[in-house]
Amino acid sequence: MNKSSVNLAPLKQPIAFTSDNIAGASSEVLEALIACNTGHANPYGNDEYTHRVEQKFSALFERDVSIFLVPTGTTANSLCLATMTPPWGSVLCHPLAHINNDECGAPEFYTDGAKMHTVDGPDAKIDPTKLSIAVRNKVGDVHTVQPSVVSITQATEVGSIYTQTEIEEIGEVCRSANVRLHMDGSRLANAFVSMNCSLADMTWRAGVDALSFGATKNGVPCAEAVVLFDPKLKTELAYRRKRAGHLFSKMRFLSAQMDAYLTNDLWLRNARHANAMAKRLVDGLQHVKGVQIMGTNEANIVFCTLPVALSKALLEAGFVFYDGRWEPGVVRFVTSFATTADEVDQLIAYATALSA
Amino acid sequence: MNKSSVNLAPLKQPIAFTSDNIAGASSEVLEALIACNTGHANPYGNDEYTHRVEQKFSALFERDVSIFLVPTGTTANSLCLATMTPPWGSVLCHPLAHINNDECGAPEFYTDGAKMHTVDGPDAKIDPTKLSIAVRNKVGDVHTVQPSVVSITQATEVGSIYTQTEIEEIGEVCRSANVRLHMDGSRLANAFVSMNCSLADMTWRAGVDALSFGATKNGVPCAEAVVLFDPKLKTELAYRRKRAGHLFSKMRFLSAQMDAYLTNDLWLRNARHANAMAKRLVDGLQHVKGVQIMGTNEANIVFCTLPVALSKALLEAGFVFYDGRWEPGVVRFVTSFATTADEVDQLIAYATALSA
Amino acid sequence: MNKSSVNLAPLKQPIAFTSDNIAGASSEVLEALIACNTGHANPYGNDEYTHRVEQKFSALFERDVSIFLVPTGTTANSLCLATMTPPWGSVLCHPLAHINNDECGAPEFYTDGAKMHTVDGPDAKIDPTKLSIAVRNKVGDVHTVQPSVVSITQATEVGSIYTQTEIEEIGEVCRSANVRLHMDGSRLANAFVSMNCSLADMTWRAGVDALSFGATKNGVPCAEAVVLFDPKLKTELAYRRKRAGHLFSKMRFLSAQMDAYLTNDLWLRNARHANAMAKRLVDGLQHVKGVQIMGTNEANIVFCTLPVALSKALLEAGFVFYDGRWEPGVVRFVTSFATTADEVDQLIAYATALSA
Amino acid sequence: MNKSSVNLAPLKQPIAFTSDNIAGASSEVLEALIACNTGHANPYGNDEYTHRVEQKFSALFERDVSIFLVPTGTTANSLCLATMTPPWGSVLCHPLAHINNDECGAPEFYTDGAKMHTVDGPDAKIDPTKLSIAVRNKVGDVHTVQPSVVSITQATEVGSIYTQTEIEEIGEVCRSANVRLHMDGSRLANAFVSMNCSLADMTWRAGVDALSFGATKNGVPCAEAVVLFDPKLKTELAYRRKRAGHLFSKMRFLSAQMDAYLTNDLWLRNARHANAMAKRLVDGLQHVKGVQIMGTNEANIVFCTLPVALSKALLEAGFVFYDGRWEPGVVRFVTSFATTADEVDQLIAYATALSA
Repeated sequence: MNKSSVNLAPLKQPIAFTSDNIAGASSEVLEALIACNTGHANPYGNDEYTHRVEQKFSALFERDVSIFLVPTGTTANSLCLATMTPPWGSVLCHPLAHINNDECGAPEFYTDGAKMHTVDGPDAKIDPTKLSIAVRNKVGDVHTVQPSVVSITQATEVGSIYTQTEIEEIGEVCRSANVRLHMDGSRLANAFVSMNCSLADMTWRAGVDALSFGATKNGVPCAEAVVLFDPKLKTELAYRRKRAGHLFSKMRFLSAQMDAYLTNDLWLRNARHANAMAKRLVDGLQHVKGVQIMGTNEANIVFCTLPVALSKALLEAGFVFYDGRWEPGVVRFVTSFATTADEVDQLIAYATALSA
Repeated sequence: MNKSSVNLAPLKQPIAFTSDNIAGASSEVLEALIACNTGHANPYGNDEYTHRVEQKFSALFERDVSIFLVPTGTTANSLCLATMTPPWGSVLCHPLAHINNDECGAPEFYTDGAKMHTVDGPDAKIDPTKLSIAVRNKVGDVHTVQPSVVSITQATEVGSIYTQTEIEEIGEVCRSANVRLHMDGSRLANAFVSMNCSLADMTWRAGVDALSFGATKNGVPCAEAVVLFDPKLKTELAYRRKRAGHLFSKMRFLSAQMDAYLTNDLWLRNARHANAMAKRLVDGLQHVKGVQIMGTNEANIVFCTLPVALSKALLEAGFVFYDGRWEPGVVRFVTSFATTADEVDQLIAYATALSA
Repeated sequence: MNKSSVNLAPLKQPIAFTSDNIAGASSEVLEALIACNTGHANPYGNDEYTHRVEQKFSALFERDVSIFLVPTGTTANSLCLATMTPPWGSVLCHPLAHINNDECGAPEFYTDGAKMHTVDGPDAKIDPTKLSIAVRNKVGDVHTVQPSVVSITQATEVGSIYTQTEIEEIGEVCRSANVRLHMDGSRLANAFVSMNCSLADMTWRAGVDALSFGATKNGVPCAEAVVLFDPKLKTELAYRRKRAGHLFSKMRFLSAQMDAYLTNDLWLRNARHANAMAKRLVDGLQHVKGVQIMGTNEANIVFCTLPVALSKALLEAGFVFYDGRWEPGVVRFVTSFATTADEVDQLIAYATALSA
Repeated sequence: MNKSSVNLAPLKQPIAFTSDNIAGASSEVLEALIACNTGHANPYGNDEYTHRVEQKFSALFERDVSIFLVPTGTTANSLCLATMTPPWGSVLCHPLAHINNDECGAPEFYTDGAKMHTVDGPDAKIDPTKLSIAVRNKVGDVHTVQPSVVSITQATEVGSIYTQTEIEEIGEVCRSANVRLHMDGSRLANAFVSMNCSLADMTWRAGVDALSFGATKNGVPCAEAVVLFDPKLKTELAYRRKRAGHLFSKMRFLSAQMDAYLTNDLWLRNARHANAMAKRLVDGLQHVKGVQIMGTNEANIVFCTLPVALSKALLEAGFVFYDGRWEPGVVRFVTSFATTADEVDQLIAYATALSA
């Protein structure tokens, strides 16, 4: 590798692909915060902005849904799980699930000590056959925590997507074993725009009882929605949210974010852009010498293997990304609504030149 | 009471004194959200805005402090308490304390089941003599929860203020019994601007170990700061915050709020205005026939007794406030940074006219 | 007071009235442990002794009941409460209740942070009128823990007894407000033998959903029974018991204790004796100069005020009892199945002589 | 297989090898319960029997230790773990560990939601190399539960035994990473009598901080001891025990069991017998056609594969044991202090005859 043999302009400032949470917010969302700041509003969600958000979600999901806005995805997941499992229950999830690895035990805290049971499968997706065994593990045996809820991530932590059929299959396993189904939709928008089905099809019609509808990773400062399809969970979730400190007094400032996010398809536009940038990255990187794209990129996350020298050179040039965090030699690039085509193209150009 | 005998223009829109949480946000704060939305920022608080907020707080308190931003006061209180009591401990607070009545058991949840022990006193302030007995209750007796932390509210739930001497006295009780001291400063700004001491004097120099520094009630959409004066609490609080879902990925949007709040004395200006409006209200109402001001108004909360007919007439006229929520005949008015002198004057005018 | 003026034989060994838990066990109970120690038995309660105990309880209560044996009263209470309140609920009890003062927060631990709300009343009994207000406190208000279960103690911590009518009245308050009713029967036998009603009348027919049926204080080494009248609570309690480490593998040794306790009216005989000893004590002490019996002694606990010099002299003479633990000058004597008439008479004789 | 071709007397009553918890108690232990039942005793462990037990343990371990008696092994384990990990910690254990599978989430309950992280290894023993990686997993990363305590089982759930060297190796891993070490000694006696070292060597000298010292499986009705080698854990454990309902008022009846168990080497005699019976079983079964002994039998548990027809025939003949509970074709036999040589010989004789 001979850096001097290629003519690369030095990066004026770092170009980062570390995560979709390093981006800021869409301007429409911030403008909505300004716009909602007029006069008094009833506190704690009894305001017009919150009501409007509920109506928009009901329209999106083609049915009445209960909406609870919260500021983080960890909270959305934990509150959902806490209403769906007793403390002596187990939550079945993939070993790579965010709830299992990256929330510092928030689900255990919110559920008062329920247990994560992992069920493996390729592409970070739960294998339905293994799941159908796991949901029946020692049911009724007082010595063992009881399978209570299954949690799937859409899109997954590696950027793969459950097909509608796969969700339905898992939904059927849950129904047959009388356990609940939760979907962690931290990147739901990125998954949805890659699928050919309705939101209703991929959620409640497939058996999902509760959804963490993510927005923060896709252009919002700090807003996520718990979407409940089972009205029986509503009362409990309300008390648990307050008790966890997540009931905002000036709720309008949370609702206005979500309202703007759902207006004029902003959420879809942002997700399509992020996915397109990831695809552009894959298209470019796959021709770079020594680079191996891993798995199937279906959303806005790209895992690949890079020669060590190439990784090192790119990092030194000013590109920012996780290198070796999962396994030695494995690199992750995440794109977002804010990633520009030029940023992607520069990465490809540098990689191509540096590996020539 | 003869409404027709006075010439009152009907209210064009409701004028509300229900709480300081019905107000929106100061425009400077929202503009800061726009301003911070440039380029990438490290997530989870490793950004320049958060660092700057820490520096500002350290300057304000004349020493190094550890800052944890959270979105609600319930969270700030609960996290503080959870780091200062074991599950078998007790939290000593006034019977009227917000943590005791209005947080749906959040302190119990965060502390894994510690117990609130109430210690009474006039003006919603803990009596130090009673406290000095309570902190020694069955210490070392394995059958009883152990006094672990005292929590005082500044300003209190009825708008009174602990004097610096009173805080020091309570601080001394805590020190002598080896229990911690927490201050719920949901309305700290409103208290501070009515006192003649430094922030350091009224907190850590008086023995406070951890402070919930409120901002939301005083012009911010959703930001509060946990201020730790004891560095030993820092690590635990960090894990507890994450575990409770309160570590924001796009933290800059929380920090920018607090940064603006602390800039150019916005927090003091807002509090002074709110207090002045409360004083204006008291000055006017005390001359209204049949109105009795309760307690000493020192912040932005006014409790008073109103003749039933007057309450009813004011509510019908379009004024909004809590009537009979605490006791029959007792009315609460709360002013905020957004309350205008005209709103106050209208209330006084109507009350005067209606009770003539 | 002149000790030498009376002819008192010195106590050969201390005579203690500190508590009913200083006594050992009835010999019938220990013999039952020997008798059950033959051959194998299915573990975890699937043995003949446990089944027999369930049948005996069902006969005693004139209906099918679910029985869970546990080793301590704290456990029985906490498990009952945990099945009857969500974590955001409140448990209404008298300020003097054992669950409120003497279990080191066990109810808070088992309920995952529910809150004790105290409701006062004379003789350590909840005032039904106050209760009917308390059970409706802020129902449906998400900011406040929700009244979920009432717990009464029979006999109470001061030795008084709820009449059947009083229990029914409280039961009716609970029913009307849709909250549960728990009875802490740590000294149920002592209460029952002083009443003129059936066990069914004083429990489930009066609205009690779950009962802590005490035995340890009345002649058993370590066995208490949770008696559930509402079968819906059964499954949850089973998991909670195991999860708390209270499911004994060699359950027969717990069941054999309870079996013997319920055989040939041992439990009633022991209680009648303990109560008779308390009555004997009252009859004697009330004629002692300077002694004032407090409240109405209805079970096996006697509270009274003693001249300081008399207390001191009795303690020095070798009698053991709590002096000044509740209030200065207040003394508590507790009798048990093992207290002898001679022990009581000696106390009376000494007191009489010492106060002459 | 032709049953009629062998001359087997039918079993007069079932012979069971299901578990060591189906046995009763050693007569010495029950006699001690009778013997301790004289006069009053201070409650809650302030009695002479409890003090004597502490002294005996200190002698056994060649140092001062803190002893907490509890009625079940699940409790002993959970209390130990709760004092050694914060709620945001992880407990590292083997996938087959009792705390991971068989306690219905008791560790999660007692620790307020800590997480089990499994570390694999052959023979149900943690691999020290894997452990040394696991204890360093994301240390200091606020998004992840923090490795806090390692728990090893001695003897393991499959009857294998950690050698002294292996314990020391794990102890060194713990020390180097600043995490605690717990030993689940539910079958400690069975392990100890198979080792050539002192109790001190295999526990605190090797780095163990807290030990669950089992007795119930080895001849005691319901008594286990928490043995603390780190005095800093003592106060916390005392409050946690009370709060969990495991502080017995009539503690002497728990202490007397343990006292007898430790007297005249009863605990060692019982364990040696149980192990000898297991060895006798292995010696006999290994010559039976089609039987394959699994792993190395070092304590009182024997896993083996049996032809399906043989299992079925033995069960029909009246032998009782778990068949297919772990894997199809895998059978477990457990012996105890109460197992007789004749019972073992009969099993061997039947197995030999039935497989002929």
